[in-house]
Amino acid sequence: MNDRFLRACRREPVDRTPLWIMRQAGRYLPEYRKLRSRVGFLDLCRTPDLAAEVTLQPLRRFPLDAAILFSDILLPLDAFGIRMTFSPGPKIAEPIRSRSQVDALHAQPAAQVVPFVADAVRLLRRELAGQVPLIGFCGAPFTLAAYLVQGEGKEGFGAVKRMLFAEPATLEALLEKLAVAMVDYLRLQVHAGVQAVQIFDSWAGILDDADYRRFALPYVSQIVDGVKDLSVPIIYFVNGAPHLIEAAAGSGANVLGVCWRTPLDEVARRVGPEMALQGNLDPHVLFAEPATIRARAADVLRCMSGRPGHIMNLGHGILPETPIASVEALIDAVHHFAETEASCAT
Amino acid sequence: MNDRFLRACRREPVDRTPLWIMRQAGRYLPEYRKLRSRVGFLDLCRTPDLAAEVTLQPLRRFPLDAAILFSDILLPLDAFGIRMTFSPGPKIAEPIRSRSQVDALHAQPAAQVVPFVADAVRLLRRELAGQVPLIGFCGAPFTLAAYLVQGEGKEGFGAVKRMLFAEPATLEALLEKLAVAMVDYLRLQVHAGVQAVQIFDSWAGILDDADYRRFALPYVSQIVDGVKDLSVPIIYFVNGAPHLIEAAAGSGANVLGVCWRTPLDEVARRVGPEMALQGNLDPHVLFAEPATIRARAADVLRCMSGRPGHIMNLGHGILPETPIASVEALIDAVHHFAETEASCAT
Repeated sequence: MNDRFLRACRREPVDRTPLWIMRQAGRYLPEYRKLRSRVGFLDLCRTPDLAAEVTLQPLRRFPLDAAILFSDILLPLDAFGIRMTFSPGPKIAEPIRSRSQVDALHAQPAAQVVPFVADAVRLLRRELAGQVPLIGFCGAPFTLAAYLVQGEGKEGFGAVKRMLFAEPATLEALLEKLAVAMVDYLRLQVHAGVQAVQIFDSWAGILDDADYRRFALPYVSQIVDGVKDLSVPIIYFVNGAPHLIEAAAGSGANVLGVCWRTPLDEVARRVGPEMALQGNLDPHVLFAEPATIRARAADVLRCMSGRPGHIMNLGHGILPETPIASVEALIDAVHHFAETEASCAT
Repeated sequence: MNDRFLRACRREPVDRTPLWIMRQAGRYLPEYRKLRSRVGFLDLCRTPDLAAEVTLQPLRRFPLDAAILFSDILLPLDAFGIRMTFSPGPKIAEPIRSRSQVDALHAQPAAQVVPFVADAVRLLRRELAGQVPLIGFCGAPFTLAAYLVQGEGKEGFGAVKRMLFAEPATLEALLEKLAVAMVDYLRLQVHAGVQAVQIFDSWAGILDDADYRRFALPYVSQIVDGVKDLSVPIIYFVNGAPHLIEAAAGSGANVLGVCWRTPLDEVARRVGPEMALQGNLDPHVLFAEPATIRARAADVLRCMSGRPGHIMNLGHGILPETPIASVEALIDAVHHFAETEASCAT
């Protein structure tokens, strides 16, 4: 089995830096667009063999070092009976704005609400047959709350910040319920067979350090604490948060994933040697010429050269308009870099 | 005349920290909403006595230490014949996506294109009669380009980043033309009477340090260099860019304005003693109880206590839903802090 990814998560030596790509199963792939033209997004997520098929599409095309379950961070919120649509962004039917709405939320077990996720994981483990590890994931409580309170994706997510200042106890009650539900959801995935998990905190960067340490970080740590007995590597991805790197390093996760804004050598200095790092090529670099893509990818790899524990990735999800040839150039850069730098390795 | 604001820009001693509020003339004021209910946004900007009236509205209500001309950063793009609408966000009729479009842009003099801005400034200087200084402003070239290329405000402004990597020379040609036009536009404002200028770089934070130093900062410096002979303080406000603070400090501006993400004492350490700082209370704090607003405002003031050159402000524009009582609590905090801390001042 290709265990580069898992070894890098544990900061063990690897023959070359492993690579996977956030949203690697997605709209930049013609085979994904073809399937989506006849199946809705939620149906895709909820049908195990289709979710598994989409998960495997990028692996058939590219020699990536990990698969990640095709799903969406908002799906397990079905556990609370929250209704939503995707077109293509999420839209919550009734945004959560009041204490009474929060108090009325009671989570059903993930195994009852999203059994299709566990089914897709089991199917994928069989189909992958040890080829590469399978990553599961969930949203971080603050990011989930940002969507639930706003009701949709919106620049700045003002509604959740308004709640944070106007009704902090309401937000805390919501975050606590989300954290408990995400522990249950990740445990379901691990029991079904995922070999690592990633917690996506896409919107924590709208908080300053003090608010982040009160309203975001503790609930991430609660999830980490709730799954660490399962002994799978835990990746915490925090987006758009160059000011929160030191704080984010305290989540308890094994790996910190960051966006492209901060060079990884600086991130490494700021978090210390105990964490593996994941990232962080700007996804827009994939619109450049292949030579530029290779050079910028090598810059990222060089930042972590000689430090154990690097998982190469983009700093955010791959964009739908990305050319396939750009992904090939990225893969080439990662594979080629390992060869040319071999003389420097111990 | 109340010259606290101008003195703080020059890092001279002041009796108390001056305060103004980004978007202080705007939708949170009932008198503004009343006027807007019968006049469109662009008509308001383009009619000198209405623009002046709106500029003065917050000054009649609150003892603020500066006025800022009511306008929009996209208005001077009329100089290039770019057509746009606001509903309420800007929408560019034909987004700039190609080299041929950029090459076809030829700027008309601001004095011919936006004479109403100069008229409003002259009117305001008469009406203000030295009560407080009047601030003029423009957009930073990268931020203007972000709108021009995207065609509208959109989270992440992917289109301009795609151009940056796919056609960097096209973006540079656009930025150069925008910088030249903004120098002309700011000079028009200063000649008409504004006593300080602010350059708004709302979207530079989507760049990493290297790209910022190539595609954003040089064009800000070009504007600074183009107006510094006029001897008015220049404020450079860079939003959402905690990773760019050191770089942004090199713009040549007198004052650096930052969003709420980084505490001002940290900003002060990172930029050194030569710059005044402006900001940076989180605008969402104004949804909290008055006691919390006062405490959080005092936290900001305390960060800069004893360091000359602080202009109190929010870290971003005041939000439309902000209660008037919250603005009063903020003002009270600034005035009260000066009194209670008087014994510490030299």
